[in-house]
Amino acid sequence: MTDVNRCFRLAARPEGMIKDSDFSWQEEAVPELGPGQILVQTLYLSVDPTQRIWSAYDSYLPAVAIGEVMRAGGVGRVLRSNLPDFSPGDLVYGMTGWQTHAVMEPSVRGPRKLPPGTPPTMALSLLGLTGLTAYFGLLDVGRVKEGETVVVSGAAGATGNAVGQIAKIKGARVVGIAGGPAKCAWIKDELGFDAAIDYKAEDVKKRLGELCPGGIDVYFDNVGGAILEAALAHLAMRGRVVLCGSIGDYNNPAGSSGPRNLMNLVIKRGRMEGFLVTDYADRFGEAIGDLARWAAEGRIQDRVDVVEGLENAPAALRRLFTGANTGKQLVKVADG
Amino acid sequence: MTDVNRCFRLAARPEGMIKDSDFSWQEEAVPELGPGQILVQTLYLSVDPTQRIWSAYDSYLPAVAIGEVMRAGGVGRVLRSNLPDFSPGDLVYGMTGWQTHAVMEPSVRGPRKLPPGTPPTMALSLLGLTGLTAYFGLLDVGRVKEGETVVVSGAAGATGNAVGQIAKIKGARVVGIAGGPAKCAWIKDELGFDAAIDYKAEDVKKRLGELCPGGIDVYFDNVGGAILEAALAHLAMRGRVVLCGSIGDYNNPAGSSGPRNLMNLVIKRGRMEGFLVTDYADRFGEAIGDLARWAAEGRIQDRVDVVEGLENAPAALRRLFTGANTGKQLVKVADG
Repeated sequence: MTDVNRCFRLAARPEGMIKDSDFSWQEEAVPELGPGQILVQTLYLSVDPTQRIWSAYDSYLPAVAIGEVMRAGGVGRVLRSNLPDFSPGDLVYGMTGWQTHAVMEPSVRGPRKLPPGTPPTMALSLLGLTGLTAYFGLLDVGRVKEGETVVVSGAAGATGNAVGQIAKIKGARVVGIAGGPAKCAWIKDELGFDAAIDYKAEDVKKRLGELCPGGIDVYFDNVGGAILEAALAHLAMRGRVVLCGSIGDYNNPAGSSGPRNLMNLVIKRGRMEGFLVTDYADRFGEAIGDLARWAAEGRIQDRVDVVEGLENAPAALRRLFTGANTGKQLVKVADG
Repeated sequence: MTDVNRCFRLAARPEGMIKDSDFSWQEEAVPELGPGQILVQTLYLSVDPTQRIWSAYDSYLPAVAIGEVMRAGGVGRVLRSNLPDFSPGDLVYGMTGWQTHAVMEPSVRGPRKLPPGTPPTMALSLLGLTGLTAYFGLLDVGRVKEGETVVVSGAAGATGNAVGQIAKIKGARVVGIAGGPAKCAWIKDELGFDAAIDYKAEDVKKRLGELCPGGIDVYFDNVGGAILEAALAHLAMRGRVVLCGSIGDYNNPAGSSGPRNLMNLVIKRGRMEGFLVTDYADRFGEAIGDLARWAAEGRIQDRVDVVEGLENAPAALRRLFTGANTGKQLVKVADG
């Protein structure tokens, strides 16, 4: 029985893009299980922009303390259990952190058992906080209606691609903004978006005007900055801007310059609203039911982008901020 | 019978602060009244930030055409009438424009008769679009509740002072942001605001933190820019930002730099929403009833700041952008 836990502990508060040296690699004995605890072997880790926030400062969660194992959601298999509801071999998800072996005890952040038949990666992606963020952001905050025009940025990212696919299921017209021809081809040709804008090659504001002649009813913002400003410029009457977090700002504590055209919210009677998916915890069951059914019916695809090896977790997190990932970024820690 | 109409016609699209030379003074014969028209002698003109927009570009209304009489709301007395509902001597309000004699015909923008006993100036201020903007912005968009903390910028301006007074009537704690000690003393000592911040002398962000330790539940924004950013920094959980138009931007077509901290809308699950009071036209009666009753009960004051003479209309409009006015800016055109 291997009782060595390999982990990354936070070594320094990152400044700008995170560096490998912001984390310290440790190999430690797995502690004895106490009453009410389980030992979980991590299989996959979720890689999310918000982890950059957790590493740096207090927000909706306190910052990870220096010396603490880096916080992250993950899926793993139960190795030992002092809890009656969990047995060795069970697949569970929750806040495992950046480590190979997590000692977990019941809390709002897991562990929870995966529904039978759920692929471990889908539990972190479409059926995890990523898919739930897309679901509640688009449907509850954005209140999209059939026939409306939806624009989503970061459209080839984890949340963005789900937003676009859910919007199509709801009968909306969908324009995705992504970086590069491969991502644009994927969302358009594979996922069925009505149009794609390559922000690296095209004038986003001009293209939005051409592609959304009736204006944008719902803009789902994953990036902030100039693209948010371009979308505001084409807001439809009573348009909604869903703020999910602006990835462009996470490595820039001063924040990027905000949109200069908020006056358009007045002229168009628009609404801009932020949200956190965790506020919808009491409705997760309803959403997971919809998402799992759409996946089973082939109406929504769940693409994951897997980096192998816990030792590459910092590099995997950087991939989000350079736009290297297509679909949900994961780290594979061990074979299931 | 004097049949000369003195008026300002738009001569040029203003750039930056409006100049006298953007308007051309004309003395013209009053045209013969057609069927369904009335002739109104203007008594007072409303002076509003949005007139700067009307002079420059299409927005929620088309821009005033070059050569057209400058658009403005006003109150006047009927001199002649070809409409059965209006008689000489009636006081009416509507879009008179910058002129001494307006030929008006029934439309959504007036003419309408003043309710009996209404002072002509109050019809343009507390009981006009100014007071209605405060009323619907605070109560319907901001949804203020008893015991909440409300912050309003431009607090000694026409809309701002009404926002603060209505918020007090609704049981909120109110902090006003205004320019200079006289305005701050007025809103605090005369109008009953709980606190005032002089943005010309104090660090607004720091003071908001001190004065709103539980955060800002409703921020009513009249100015945009750095003050909007400061308010966002102190937004309470589920705080609302009411965008009424940012006076700082009206002379700056590129727009001022937007707030760099929209991420706070995500962290605090906040909402920022723009509105135009004209959308509430079917509820004006209800609001005017409340406002008139509060005024009669002495619970709300209506302060007007009157510039004498139509020839000073451009200068009166400039006063809004230099912060010279306290309360509602009007131009007096003739004795009633």
